[in-house]
Amino acid sequence: MNPIPHSQSSVEATDWCSLRDRLTATRAATEALVADLSPEDQNLQSMPEASPAKWHRAHTSWFFETFVLAEHLPDYGVFHPAFAELFNSYYNGVGRQHPRPQRALLSRPSAKAVTDYRRHVDAAMKALFERANPELAAALTPLIELGIAHEQQHQELILTDLKHAFSHNPLAPPVGQSPQAGPATTADPGWQRFSGGIHEIGARGESFCFDNETPRHRVLLNQDYELAERPVTVREYADFMADGGYEEPLLWLSDGWSWVQQHSVRAPLYWRFEDERWQTFMLSGWREPDPDAPVCHISFYEAAAYAAWAGARLPTEVEWEIAAHDVEIQGQFADSGRYHPEPVKRGVGLHGLFGSVWEWTASNYAPYPGFAPAAGAVGEYNGKFMANQMVLRGGSCATPAGHIRPSYRNFFYPPDRWQFSGLRLARDA
Amino acid sequence: MNPIPHSQSSVEATDWCSLRDRLTATRAATEALVADLSPEDQNLQSMPEASPAKWHRAHTSWFFETFVLAEHLPDYGVFHPAFAELFNSYYNGVGRQHPRPQRALLSRPSAKAVTDYRRHVDAAMKALFERANPELAAALTPLIELGIAHEQQHQELILTDLKHAFSHNPLAPPVGQSPQAGPATTADPGWQRFSGGIHEIGARGESFCFDNETPRHRVLLNQDYELAERPVTVREYADFMADGGYEEPLLWLSDGWSWVQQHSVRAPLYWRFEDERWQTFMLSGWREPDPDAPVCHISFYEAAAYAAWAGARLPTEVEWEIAAHDVEIQGQFADSGRYHPEPVKRGVGLHGLFGSVWEWTASNYAPYPGFAPAAGAVGEYNGKFMANQMVLRGGSCATPAGHIRPSYRNFFYPPDRWQFSGLRLARDA
Amino acid sequence: MNPIPHSQSSVEATDWCSLRDRLTATRAATEALVADLSPEDQNLQSMPEASPAKWHRAHTSWFFETFVLAEHLPDYGVFHPAFAELFNSYYNGVGRQHPRPQRALLSRPSAKAVTDYRRHVDAAMKALFERANPELAAALTPLIELGIAHEQQHQELILTDLKHAFSHNPLAPPVGQSPQAGPATTADPGWQRFSGGIHEIGARGESFCFDNETPRHRVLLNQDYELAERPVTVREYADFMADGGYEEPLLWLSDGWSWVQQHSVRAPLYWRFEDERWQTFMLSGWREPDPDAPVCHISFYEAAAYAAWAGARLPTEVEWEIAAHDVEIQGQFADSGRYHPEPVKRGVGLHGLFGSVWEWTASNYAPYPGFAPAAGAVGEYNGKFMANQMVLRGGSCATPAGHIRPSYRNFFYPPDRWQFSGLRLARDA
Amino acid sequence: MNPIPHSQSSVEATDWCSLRDRLTATRAATEALVADLSPEDQNLQSMPEASPAKWHRAHTSWFFETFVLAEHLPDYGVFHPAFAELFNSYYNGVGRQHPRPQRALLSRPSAKAVTDYRRHVDAAMKALFERANPELAAALTPLIELGIAHEQQHQELILTDLKHAFSHNPLAPPVGQSPQAGPATTADPGWQRFSGGIHEIGARGESFCFDNETPRHRVLLNQDYELAERPVTVREYADFMADGGYEEPLLWLSDGWSWVQQHSVRAPLYWRFEDERWQTFMLSGWREPDPDAPVCHISFYEAAAYAAWAGARLPTEVEWEIAAHDVEIQGQFADSGRYHPEPVKRGVGLHGLFGSVWEWTASNYAPYPGFAPAAGAVGEYNGKFMANQMVLRGGSCATPAGHIRPSYRNFFYPPDRWQFSGLRLARDA
Repeated sequence: MNPIPHSQSSVEATDWCSLRDRLTATRAATEALVADLSPEDQNLQSMPEASPAKWHRAHTSWFFETFVLAEHLPDYGVFHPAFAELFNSYYNGVGRQHPRPQRALLSRPSAKAVTDYRRHVDAAMKALFERANPELAAALTPLIELGIAHEQQHQELILTDLKHAFSHNPLAPPVGQSPQAGPATTADPGWQRFSGGIHEIGARGESFCFDNETPRHRVLLNQDYELAERPVTVREYADFMADGGYEEPLLWLSDGWSWVQQHSVRAPLYWRFEDERWQTFMLSGWREPDPDAPVCHISFYEAAAYAAWAGARLPTEVEWEIAAHDVEIQGQFADSGRYHPEPVKRGVGLHGLFGSVWEWTASNYAPYPGFAPAAGAVGEYNGKFMANQMVLRGGSCATPAGHIRPSYRNFFYPPDRWQFSGLRLARDA
Repeated sequence: MNPIPHSQSSVEATDWCSLRDRLTATRAATEALVADLSPEDQNLQSMPEASPAKWHRAHTSWFFETFVLAEHLPDYGVFHPAFAELFNSYYNGVGRQHPRPQRALLSRPSAKAVTDYRRHVDAAMKALFERANPELAAALTPLIELGIAHEQQHQELILTDLKHAFSHNPLAPPVGQSPQAGPATTADPGWQRFSGGIHEIGARGESFCFDNETPRHRVLLNQDYELAERPVTVREYADFMADGGYEEPLLWLSDGWSWVQQHSVRAPLYWRFEDERWQTFMLSGWREPDPDAPVCHISFYEAAAYAAWAGARLPTEVEWEIAAHDVEIQGQFADSGRYHPEPVKRGVGLHGLFGSVWEWTASNYAPYPGFAPAAGAVGEYNGKFMANQMVLRGGSCATPAGHIRPSYRNFFYPPDRWQFSGLRLARDA
Repeated sequence: MNPIPHSQSSVEATDWCSLRDRLTATRAATEALVADLSPEDQNLQSMPEASPAKWHRAHTSWFFETFVLAEHLPDYGVFHPAFAELFNSYYNGVGRQHPRPQRALLSRPSAKAVTDYRRHVDAAMKALFERANPELAAALTPLIELGIAHEQQHQELILTDLKHAFSHNPLAPPVGQSPQAGPATTADPGWQRFSGGIHEIGARGESFCFDNETPRHRVLLNQDYELAERPVTVREYADFMADGGYEEPLLWLSDGWSWVQQHSVRAPLYWRFEDERWQTFMLSGWREPDPDAPVCHISFYEAAAYAAWAGARLPTEVEWEIAAHDVEIQGQFADSGRYHPEPVKRGVGLHGLFGSVWEWTASNYAPYPGFAPAAGAVGEYNGKFMANQMVLRGGSCATPAGHIRPSYRNFFYPPDRWQFSGLRLARDA
Repeated sequence: MNPIPHSQSSVEATDWCSLRDRLTATRAATEALVADLSPEDQNLQSMPEASPAKWHRAHTSWFFETFVLAEHLPDYGVFHPAFAELFNSYYNGVGRQHPRPQRALLSRPSAKAVTDYRRHVDAAMKALFERANPELAAALTPLIELGIAHEQQHQELILTDLKHAFSHNPLAPPVGQSPQAGPATTADPGWQRFSGGIHEIGARGESFCFDNETPRHRVLLNQDYELAERPVTVREYADFMADGGYEEPLLWLSDGWSWVQQHSVRAPLYWRFEDERWQTFMLSGWREPDPDAPVCHISFYEAAAYAAWAGARLPTEVEWEIAAHDVEIQGQFADSGRYHPEPVKRGVGLHGLFGSVWEWTASNYAPYPGFAPAAGAVGEYNGKFMANQMVLRGGSCATPAGHIRPSYRNFFYPPDRWQFSGLRLARDA
C-alpha cells in the first residue's frame, strides 16, 4: 500500500507478534457480533446498499485470502474456487463480482460453511505469521494492517445493516444492550473557538492509516471559527421538526428538498409516530428516544437543513480535524455493547467528538492534494469512490474502539441514513 | 365455500377419516419437500412474485389456523399473535398483511419455529377431527378440502420459487432427480379433431373443486377444431428461435413485442448460451435440454408467437377442457421426484395433457357465467384475480399427483415464466 | 381487408361518388377540430399514450399515402421521404417508427407543413377517385372505408389527448361548448330484461366494419339477464365515493386495489376537490359536475368496484351487443360540439347506449372464433392488440356521429381513464 | 445582492445609461436567438433538465418583473397573474412553481404572447430607467446586473436545450453556421507550470459577479502544478475510445463505471457510428467531427476516466483560476454564430481557456469560506445548489461574449453531457 507508512525493510519480532494478536482479536470480534444470530438472520439483506452478516464474514476472509495468502503463503489452498467471485465486493482488478443486490440469494455457502472458511483462513494466516522471515513480515505488515482495519469497518456495517433489516420485522430479537441515560444537556451547546491560518491535516505517518488520509498537507483557513462543544441532540432536532423544518423549502439544499418531497420525509430514519408519541428503532428494540442523546440516522440534507435553521453551518472536514488534534480519543464505541448513542458526558472543550455518532461535514469526499491510490488491486479501496459522497468524521457507537483517529475519513452519499450519522454545528468566529 | 359441492348435512365417518388421512399426507408432503433445505435455503426470495419456502410452510398453516381452527375448535390457542399479519397472503377480509416483497426479511420466526407452528396446527387439526360431530364434520369438509388443495398449490410454488432463487447461485444444491430420456418425437405432432356445437364445461360437482371452476355451464363452439396430440417440444421451439422468431415483430402480440424489446428476451427463462451451446437450469442443475421434451418456462407472449410462427393458434380453455374430458389423468407429476418435464409417452389420442407442463390457453381468466365467489373470507381466494391473467391447463411435473382435473383453471400474467409453462397447438378444423 | 364485407368485383359509380364525399367530409371534419388550435397546441403530448393533434393529422394522411396512394395511384409522389417513419404509428410490416413517447419532439414538420401534406394527399385521393376504373374502385373501397373509419377514430383521440394536455395548463382555452343540463334522473335506473339462449353477434356484413367485429357467430347465454336502462350517474358515483368505496379493498379486483394504492386514486380522472367541493375539468373548462350526467373518465377497475358496491356487475360484451341490436343509434356525439356527457334523455328501453360515454364491459379484448386479421400490412390494425385490454362499447360524446354501430368494439387497458369511459350495470335475471 | 460589489450609495448617470444599453442589447440578443424558430420549435422540451426556448424567454422576463419591477416601479401592472407561477423556475421564496418536467405542456401563452410579455417588461424597465433617482439607481444596479447575467445564462441554455431537442428530429433545421477548420494540433499539448503556495481566488469586486464567486479569499497549494496548454481534442479522445477506454473499469470512478454500464455509454453525447464512421450532431446538422477540435459533450465521469487513461488528472478549480488570472478573455463565443467548438489557435501559454468548451474541474461545487447567499429571494440563485455538482470553468462556444471571467463558476451534475463540456489536463509538477 503506497503511500501507507512504515513499510520498513524489516520488522521487529515483537511488532509482528503484536500484529498477529490484533488480527486474532479482530477476527474473534467479528464472530462475537454474530454469535446470537441465526443462519437466516445472517443472510438478511434489506436494501442493495446493505449486505448480509454472513457475506461480511466471508468477504473479510476473502480479503486476506486474495490479497495476502494467495500471493504470499506458498502452497496455500484456496478454500473454494467459487468464492473468488461470490465474495469480491468491488475489486475489478482481481476479477468479476456477484451482483451486490443479490447477496441474500446466497443461501449457500451456509453460515456454518462460512465459519469453516474463516477457520481455514485463520489457520493459514497463523502459518504465515509463523513462517514469514523479517523481510516478508515487513512487506506484509501494511497489508495485514489494512485487512484488520477493513474487517473493523465491516463489523460496523454488520451492525448497521442488521439494524436496517431487523427494523422490518416485529419479531426481531434485541441486539446488544439498551442505551443508558446520561447527563442532561444545556440549551446552549457551548462553543469553542479555533484559529484560522495555516494548519496541517492528514495522517502523520506514525501508525496505520488508509490511503485517503494521505498525504499530510498544509491547509489555509481564511478565518477563525467555532465548533459546538457537543453534537446536536434529539431535543434540539425535535424542536426543528416542531418548528416545521421539514416543510420549509428555504432551509434546504435544492437536492435535499427534492429528496424530502419525493420520499415524504418527516423525521430521521427509524422514527415512527405511534400512540401519540415518537418512537425510534434501536438494535435493542423500539423505544422513546432520549432527548439528551445525540440525534442520529439523519442524512446530509437533514444535517444541512438543521444547521441552516439553527443559524449555523456544518464544519468542513478541515475544521473538524484541526479541532480534533488535541482531543483524547474516547467516547461510546462498539465495545460498550450498547449500539445506540447515549448523552455525551460534558467535560472541558469538545466532547462526543469520537464515538456516539458520525458527524456529517460540509466537505465532499475528494482526494487530498498529491493523493495517489495504493498500488495494486487494493488501490480500488478508496480512491474510486471520490465522487458524489460527503465526509463524516469521528466514529460512532457502532465503531470498534481503536479503529478511529483524527484524520479518519468516512464517506456516504448525501441521502444515506442507515449509519449512526448526526451532526455538530459550526460557525464563523 | 359456496358453491363448492357436497356440503351435505352430515358426513360418513369413513369419509371423515379419509379426509383426515389426506390432510396428514399433504402436510407431510410439504415437509418432505424441504427436508434437504437449510434454514437459509428456506428463506430465499428472488423476486416479489415468489415467496420463501419457509413462508409457504407457515402460510399454509395460517390458512388452517385462521379459517378452520380459530373459528371451529373451542379453546384453540393461536400459536403466535404476530403470525396473523406475517403469514396472511392477500386476505383483506381477515386483516393486514406483511408486504409481499419483504417476506425474505422474516429471518424470525426461524425454520425451526415454523416447524413448531406446523406441529401445533397439526395437533389442533387432529383434535378437531376427533371431536367434531357429524354435523360439524359435514360443515367443515369443504373448508378442509380447500385447505388441502391450497397446500398442494403451495407445494408446487415451493419448487418453482426455489428454482428461481437457486438459478442465481452457482453453489445451489440439486433438488430432486434428473429428468429421464424418453421416446423420440416425430416431426408431425399428430392432430386430433373435436366437434363444435354445444358442450358443457366446469366442475361436475362430484368432488372438490375451486369456486372458479363453477358453475358448470353450456358453451357453444362455432366450428370443429383440432388439437396437437402432444405439447411443443424443445426441438420445435429451437427451430423457431433459429428461424429468427424473437426478431420478427409480425409474429408477436403488440404487448409481447414490447416485452421482448424491453427485456432483450432471446430464449425461454433459464436458458443460457455458453460453450457454444444452449444450457438450461433445472432443479437438478444446469444441463443441455432434451430436444424431445416439452419446452417450458415460456411466457404467454412466447407461446402465442410460437403458435403464429407454426401457422396455428393456442386453444381456448373451452376447447382444452372439452378435449380433456375423456383423457385419463396420468402423466409426470411431482411424485416422480424429477422436477423437469420429460418427453411424453406416445399413446392413442392426446398425450402429455396432464402433468409435464402447464399449457397456456388463449383464454383470459374470467368468471364463468353465474359465478359467485365463495362466501366469507375465502371468497378472496380466486375471484379478485380475474383480470389481466391468462388461463393455463393440465398441471406440470411440479404439480402434486391427484391435484389436477379437467376443469382445473390455473392463471398467470402474460409475461410470467417461472412456472413450468409450455403450450399445445390448436387449429380450426 | 379480409374478411371485411362487400369487396365486390365492381362498384356502382354512385357508391364511388358517395365514398369520395364521405372521405372529403371526414378529412374536413379533422381540420375543423383543430381550427382554433395554435401550432403549439397542436404539438402537445402529455403522456406516452397520447399524441399531438398535429401528429394525428399527419398520421391519418400517412395512412392513405401508404396503404392506398403509394400502391394504387400511378406516379404518386410521396410528399416527404422522412414521413414514412415519422408518422407510422405501429405498422412493423411497412417499416420503422419514430418512438411514440417522442412525438412532441417533432416541432418540424410544422402545423402548416402538415396542412400542406394533407392537401397533397387530398388532391391525390381526388385524382384517384377520378381515374379509378370500376374494378379498382371495388378493390379499393374497403381500404378507403377503413381509412375513413381510422380517421374518425383519430378525431376522437384528438379531443381526448388534447383534454389530457390542456388539463395541465391553467391558461388552456375552452374547446367546444359547455354541456347542457338535462332531465333529472331517478334513483332507480330501471332495468330491462333480455333472454338467454343462443344469439348471434358480430358484424352482419351489410356495411363497413373492422376485422375485429368478424366473423359473425353464434353465442350461448346460460341465463336471462338485465341491463340498467341508463349509465351510472355522477350522483351515484359520488355516493360510492362518500361511502368509502376507494378505501374498501373487498370491492376491488386485486390489480385494481394495487392501482388505487399505488396512485392514491380517490376520484375519477379530472376531478379535484377545491373550495370545499368537487370540480371536474371539461374541454370547456373547470366546473362542478352535473349530478345527473353519466360519470366518465373512470378506469375498468373503478367500474368493476362500483358495480360490486352496487350489488351488480358489468355486462359482458355479448350481453351488451344483444341488447343493442334493436336500439336506435342516437345520442350525444361529437357533432353536438359539446364534448362532455350530458344527462341522457329517458325514453322507452335502454337509453344513452350510444354516445355520451363508452361503457366498460366485463369482456377482455379477444379474437372472435374463426377470426383472421385482415390481409397485408393493415392486418396489424387490430389483432395484435388482443391481450391485456378490455372491451368498451357504444361510443361517446367525442365519437363522430355515424362512426358507431352495435358490433363496434373499442378496447383500452384496465387502468386507462383519459377516454370518456363510464359504465352501465348488469345483473343476472 | 449581498455581497455583490459596488452597491454604492449613488451611481453616475453615464453608468446608469450604460447599464440600460446593456440590458437592451441583452434582451435583443435573446430574441435574435429565436428569430428563426417556429412556435413549435420554441416549445420543445426533450428532458426534464431542459426547458423550451419560449419558457426561457418568459422566465428571464419574469425575473425582472418579480425582482425589479413589482417592487420598485410604482404602478407597475403585472402582465398576467398566472405567470408568477408558470415562469418561476425554483424560487420558493416568492411562491409556487409549475412542475419543471411539464414546461412543454404550456402551449399557452403562445410564442407571440411571450413576445408581448417581453415588450411589456422592456417598456417598464425603460420607464424605470427614466424615473429612477440616483439613490434608487444605485440600489437597483446590482439587481439589474444580475438580471442581465441571468438572461445571458439562459441564452446559452436556449442553445444547448434546443440542440438536445433537435437531435431527436431528422427534420430539424440548422441553427447557426457550421464550425470552421483550424490549425492542426500537435501530439503533445504543451504544458505550462504554475507555482504552489498562497494565492487569492474569487471575484475581485471590481465589476459584477455572482454571489458564488465570493468572498475573494486566500488558498494554499501544496505544490507546483502544470496545465495542458489546450483542451483535449477529438483525436485524442478517439484514441481513448479505440484503446478500450469505455471497457476498462479501472479507469473509472465507481459511480462513473455504474453510469457507463447502466446507460451503455460508448462515446460522447451526440455521437453515432453510421456508415462505418463516427458522426456528431451539431446545431448546424450531422457531420464528421473535426479531430483537431476540442472534444465536447462529455460527462465529468468521462473527463475523469480520460485523464486517468492519459496519466494525468483534472485541475482543481483553484488551479484553473490561478492559471487564468493573466490570460486574456478571448476565444470562440456565441457571437461567432458558430455553435460548435473549433480547433483553438495556438499562441503563447494557455489557449482555448475561455470559450470553446466548458472545462470540467476536479472540484465539487461548494461555498467559498465565509460565503453568504445574497439577501432576499435571489439568495436562492446559487447557494442551494451547492451539493452533488462539479464546477466547470471558462465558458463555451455557446456562452455570450462578455459573460465570462476568471472567477466564474459553472456547475453541473457529474453525468450531465448536454452542455458544451470538455476538459483540460493537469498534473503535479
